[in-house]
Amino acid sequence: MSKLFEDFKEYLNRMNQYGHVCTLLYWDMKTAAPKLGQAAHVEALTHFSSESFAMSTSEELGGMLDSLAGPEEFEELTDTWKFIVKRMKKDFDRNRRIPGELYRTFVKAQAESGNAWEEAKEAADFSVFAPHLQKMIDLTREITGYTDPGKEIYDALLDQYEEGMDSATIDRLFGELKKELIPLVQAIFAKDQPENQAFSRYFDPDAQKKVQDMLLSYIGFRRDAGSVGETEHPFTLNFSSKDVRVTNHYYENDPLSAIFSAIHEGGHGIFEQNVNPQYDNTRAGSCDYMGLHESQSRFYENILGRNKNFWIPIYDKLGELLPPFREISLEDFYREINHVKNSFIRVNADEVTYCFHIILRYEMEKAIFRDQVPVEELPALWNQKMQEYLQITPANDAEGILQDMHWSDGSFGYFPSYLLGSIYDGMFLDALRKELGDVDVLLKEGRIGEITRWLNEKIHWYGSTRKPKEVISAVCGREISAEPLIRYFKEKYTEIYGL
Amino acid sequence: MSKLFEDFKEYLNRMNQYGHVCTLLYWDMKTAAPKLGQAAHVEALTHFSSESFAMSTSEELGGMLDSLAGPEEFEELTDTWKFIVKRMKKDFDRNRRIPGELYRTFVKAQAESGNAWEEAKEAADFSVFAPHLQKMIDLTREITGYTDPGKEIYDALLDQYEEGMDSATIDRLFGELKKELIPLVQAIFAKDQPENQAFSRYFDPDAQKKVQDMLLSYIGFRRDAGSVGETEHPFTLNFSSKDVRVTNHYYENDPLSAIFSAIHEGGHGIFEQNVNPQYDNTRAGSCDYMGLHESQSRFYENILGRNKNFWIPIYDKLGELLPPFREISLEDFYREINHVKNSFIRVNADEVTYCFHIILRYEMEKAIFRDQVPVEELPALWNQKMQEYLQITPANDAEGILQDMHWSDGSFGYFPSYLLGSIYDGMFLDALRKELGDVDVLLKEGRIGEITRWLNEKIHWYGSTRKPKEVISAVCGREISAEPLIRYFKEKYTEIYGL
Repeated sequence: MSKLFEDFKEYLNRMNQYGHVCTLLYWDMKTAAPKLGQAAHVEALTHFSSESFAMSTSEELGGMLDSLAGPEEFEELTDTWKFIVKRMKKDFDRNRRIPGELYRTFVKAQAESGNAWEEAKEAADFSVFAPHLQKMIDLTREITGYTDPGKEIYDALLDQYEEGMDSATIDRLFGELKKELIPLVQAIFAKDQPENQAFSRYFDPDAQKKVQDMLLSYIGFRRDAGSVGETEHPFTLNFSSKDVRVTNHYYENDPLSAIFSAIHEGGHGIFEQNVNPQYDNTRAGSCDYMGLHESQSRFYENILGRNKNFWIPIYDKLGELLPPFREISLEDFYREINHVKNSFIRVNADEVTYCFHIILRYEMEKAIFRDQVPVEELPALWNQKMQEYLQITPANDAEGILQDMHWSDGSFGYFPSYLLGSIYDGMFLDALRKELGDVDVLLKEGRIGEITRWLNEKIHWYGSTRKPKEVISAVCGREISAEPLIRYFKEKYTEIYGL
Repeated sequence: MSKLFEDFKEYLNRMNQYGHVCTLLYWDMKTAAPKLGQAAHVEALTHFSSESFAMSTSEELGGMLDSLAGPEEFEELTDTWKFIVKRMKKDFDRNRRIPGELYRTFVKAQAESGNAWEEAKEAADFSVFAPHLQKMIDLTREITGYTDPGKEIYDALLDQYEEGMDSATIDRLFGELKKELIPLVQAIFAKDQPENQAFSRYFDPDAQKKVQDMLLSYIGFRRDAGSVGETEHPFTLNFSSKDVRVTNHYYENDPLSAIFSAIHEGGHGIFEQNVNPQYDNTRAGSCDYMGLHESQSRFYENILGRNKNFWIPIYDKLGELLPPFREISLEDFYREINHVKNSFIRVNADEVTYCFHIILRYEMEKAIFRDQVPVEELPALWNQKMQEYLQITPANDAEGILQDMHWSDGSFGYFPSYLLGSIYDGMFLDALRKELGDVDVLLKEGRIGEITRWLNEKIHWYGSTRKPKEVISAVCGREISAEPLIRYFKEKYTEIYGL
């Protein structure tokens, strides 16, 4: 190991300490810190994230990366370290191009915009948020001009969250989906779908937590390398493969929310726990591709969790832990968790209409960044698209354009990840069937561990070292296509709804 | 504000950020981090506590403190800042006298000793721990020689945990207690005390958590400035008056443990939440005197919590939250929470025999540091004293000398704090009665808020700015005496046991 490489690793280690406490401060703010303790945490987070940013853009780091990327040193590195150095150098060059003043303006605007969004959503008043949204759009344009000079802006944004992805590919994929799913959903809506009141009874939140523990353990989330917290909005974060945290909420009159959030976040968590531990605390570790990450949470939540066979080995256990389920048959449960209905809120949508919620947002983002649609026209455009895809119109902007926080913090280009995840899932399911056999049988026989191991080996292990398209190619041996997902939907709903 | 003072506050602020994340890392290690995530937290804790120690012993800080303590600058300071500067200067001078190498040896020995103690306790084998105990004693002697040159060593140790306290005072106080409590306890033991099996039934841990929430709220622990975690051993920590955390454990077959730990830690927590918020993040804030701190936790736990009247307004609520209590009368409950019996383990002892557990440890510490009793003779000495005070002999060292972790990390001189706390409580109770009237009436009428406010104003508000003796003098107007505690015990047990 060269002196330079040693210094570099020592530098990384120091930088990681800052990252480590920033992650922890965020976790604690969401799970434990009382209201009056938040301000001190924000102050500490500001302090340590500034230190971390300074270290990640320092001349010293730049010099080390330049030398390590030079021919002599580079050839001495292992493949993993080659990947890390290249990736860090890319990040470094990108970040260094952003003028410091612009970055600070962005961070400040982000905080203000977040507050304005909350206020606007509370009051269902888009006008409160509009000027901040405008500012976030303008600043995103400006920053992207520095980070990705010469690149079409929306493609640059997509690439940030799903490296290698572009709007031409997404247009093709989402186009196929629209063509096939609109008639499918219409056919489902034409069927009689009575509401089942059994799911709005009282379900003890403490018992829901026990169900969550059972589900996490069942799908393979390891508690020696993971823990669970309670938050308003469920999320997953990780320090390394050895410390992965998931959160959940527990609604007294809606047990399905916590159940499927547990499986969803558990899927994210299983991904992170099974990345090659040698990648821990480097840019190779953790998965940095949001579409690929969502593919795993959604595989567990939807492909596995909404399959009737998933529940056969554990349905009695569910009833034991949460007694109201004893009075609900597995058949009724299965219908309820696959109840397709048009609804306003993305996070509450069923598996299939969810696609339209994402397509709508994707089209909105293109309208903003390509067609330059003025901010004040966006609510009407949203509502027009809701009508087009789901034949409903939000009563107000809180259940329309204001429902998600993503745009308030400038995460433009993130939304497509969710649906890309499902598209990948269709393909992964095909590959899994080919290699392990009938998934229904595996699930029915309680052999979900074999599925988890397959995903571990094929996908999770590589962390960030394989880009999404490389993973797809290695696992599925073909180009990305929406066809498998469409086929999966058609087969599933034809059977459930007798289409 | 002088430039120097501004720089000093800026320096303090940076130093506080390190302290802040160290506290958070500790909290998270105990409450949330999974087993495999501990090592990374330890690494971060080592990094940031070293940074913090370096800042607290730097030439730069020393220079600022010297200047601020000089006549010109000092006179410009407010009283609070005068206190902070004096105290920091004292800490600084003290810490700077410890050779760096010695300090590092101590920290390392502390970690090794902690591990050895755990192993020894597990195996009930004192010989595993003995060499480490010897090392901790030797290092403590050596360090104290630097920090408190010329001072008698055990007095120096006592002063560390309870500033202004010395062994002459403690000898007098504990001597009075021994004289009066030995016959009192003998008289109690002579009475018939049947075991009540109702308390070893199953008590749902989730319901115990709800009881805890109710109790914390009832005594005045504020949730907007506090939160609760679950750990093996209950403790309290705080970031500032605005963020105070308490923990608890929940035993299925022993509801009283969680109930009284909740009230005890809640008492610590109420203290910290009510320190003058202007002292936050300085050496004036938080209470640094362990005896005084224990006086507050023990006031809530024992003086209030083991009074029958405390339970009158909330006993029905207790039964609602934890139904097995519906079948236990308040009278039986009251007898059980004041059941005096000789037992081996300090933390499980009743209010009165607890005194002997502390007196024993105090005498052991004097034997170690004054009489130089060899380490290998300590277990026999322990057992001899158990026989003397409680007429029982531990079956092994795990329930004898190995039961507490304090000596393994070098906290010699800490134990007396617990009993000093109770002694102060006797005095505070007298003062409270004089000013607010009959405590039984206040409790019975659910007016505990008035008691909490009185403690807030008389004691908590001052944080570390008043030393324990100053607090006693201001609140009670007299010298420290064990007489009020003894009188309280006699009255209480005479009534309960019909002596």
